[in-house]
Amino acid sequence: MQLIDGKLVSQQIRSELKAEVERMVEQGMRRPHLAVVIVGHDGGSETYVAAKVKACEEVGYRSTRIAFEADVTEEQLLQKIDELNRQADLDGFIVQLPLPSHIDEQKITLAIAPEKDVDGFHPVNVGRMNLGLPCFLSATPAGIIELLRRYQIPTQGKHCVIIGRSNIVGRPVATLMAQKGYPGDATVTICHSRTQNLKQICQTADIIIAALGRPGFVTSDMVKPGAVVIDVGTTRVPDATRKSGFRLAGDVDFEHVAPLCSYITPVPGGVGPMTIASLLLNTMQAAKQTQNLL
Amino acid sequence: MQLIDGKLVSQQIRSELKAEVERMVEQGMRRPHLAVVIVGHDGGSETYVAAKVKACEEVGYRSTRIAFEADVTEEQLLQKIDELNRQADLDGFIVQLPLPSHIDEQKITLAIAPEKDVDGFHPVNVGRMNLGLPCFLSATPAGIIELLRRYQIPTQGKHCVIIGRSNIVGRPVATLMAQKGYPGDATVTICHSRTQNLKQICQTADIIIAALGRPGFVTSDMVKPGAVVIDVGTTRVPDATRKSGFRLAGDVDFEHVAPLCSYITPVPGGVGPMTIASLLLNTMQAAKQTQNLL
Repeated sequence: MQLIDGKLVSQQIRSELKAEVERMVEQGMRRPHLAVVIVGHDGGSETYVAAKVKACEEVGYRSTRIAFEADVTEEQLLQKIDELNRQADLDGFIVQLPLPSHIDEQKITLAIAPEKDVDGFHPVNVGRMNLGLPCFLSATPAGIIELLRRYQIPTQGKHCVIIGRSNIVGRPVATLMAQKGYPGDATVTICHSRTQNLKQICQTADIIIAALGRPGFVTSDMVKPGAVVIDVGTTRVPDATRKSGFRLAGDVDFEHVAPLCSYITPVPGGVGPMTIASLLLNTMQAAKQTQNLL
Repeated sequence: MQLIDGKLVSQQIRSELKAEVERMVEQGMRRPHLAVVIVGHDGGSETYVAAKVKACEEVGYRSTRIAFEADVTEEQLLQKIDELNRQADLDGFIVQLPLPSHIDEQKITLAIAPEKDVDGFHPVNVGRMNLGLPCFLSATPAGIIELLRRYQIPTQGKHCVIIGRSNIVGRPVATLMAQKGYPGDATVTICHSRTQNLKQICQTADIIIAALGRPGFVTSDMVKPGAVVIDVGTTRVPDATRKSGFRLAGDVDFEHVAPLCSYITPVPGGVGPMTIASLLLNTMQAAKQTQNLL
């Protein structure tokens, strides 16, 4: 069994990006510039945003943090987005979700210019991904694909079973795994809450991607010996022994499943660290597009 | 075994639309208006376009046929599209594919305003479909879904195996079958040229959707008794006994597969006739949007 070390891969990507930024600056280009919009004071959101800003600094990107109080109106937020869409020295930006309930998240997502949508949530980017056209891939699916690529895990003709059909993980990763080329060319089965015989289906899988958000859901009797298991779950479980009061739990019963696997991602330290790496990669791509280097 | 009669369903839809147009006109609304752009003199394309124009007449839509010679430049075509995008009394239009090789089909598809893209090929419509948002569904996947709905074929929790991963059939129908609600909520496996053990996978299917374009590919040993089989294949096979010199062949060995099925679509007369019905439905939707009736 080999552990897929997302933290390590994420660090490799950051090092590569840092070197790339240095080359860009040497050649007289502008550093990539990412803006992060945060609304209110949700603890999780503040942590994520701080991590994103810190990651930008680490690789030499310029970053801008734009904070609104929780009572900002939808109109004010849309006005800021419009401004960011037109800001010439800004390559990409994200609006950290979730938003307060008086703001329509879908309206916000649709307002972001697709060419600055480094979260890859806009329908134009989702559509382009489905059509196999150049686009911004959303962070988690892109991170999973990158892990498979860096560990050179064979995917062609393999049976990949995806548990979960969310718009941000299950569906897009299904699309990517079934696309032509590597990583891809897999036979993909997408399972969800309505699936019958999930256990039997998983038993036929060469690759399992668990993205349903139920701690320990994938048990050892569901996994074929030698399978690759990618655990996307990051549920916060109360844990009095931790300073934070919680620990992150994956969708896989790691202790019993890991010994069966050829490769497996841990939680934390697997897919999680890849999401910020994906955001940095998208921002680099945006910066190159803005400066016409692609 | 029950035959799924696409010709009949398509006629039902046309009757319903005709009645709807009459109601619209009575209420002082404008008739739906579809334009069809054709380039060159490809025999297949001319037949399809003629059928689309005729279908419009039949249901009481206004239609406009815009023909260019095969030597039209890309720029001229883009200019016409720009004009059609801005034409206020036009609800939707399509550019019949394939186009001559000197014209970039992707560029043409991207130039069509998403709100007039009644073929549903623009990335915005593809993305919106994937996100479960209102959109124009492309004709063949929409037609398949409509057949399942009209025959009230159960899909929830069923294993649906799709053979083929094209952008116009396999991928979108996979997305729709896995979506929440009915028809949908199926466990979906998408198979293609790289799939191993296709026969065994098909044997587990409650619903098979064959969309690979190889006559007679699905044989009786691949089909579980009681399965539903949807045949999307329409390959032209030379046939000297026909006036046209060819016959349409499906992807399913109908003679031997049909007796095993609970439901099966014939070729011709199954999915085929539904594509124009889907186009008419999209055009009605566009007309309602244009006139703010939705």
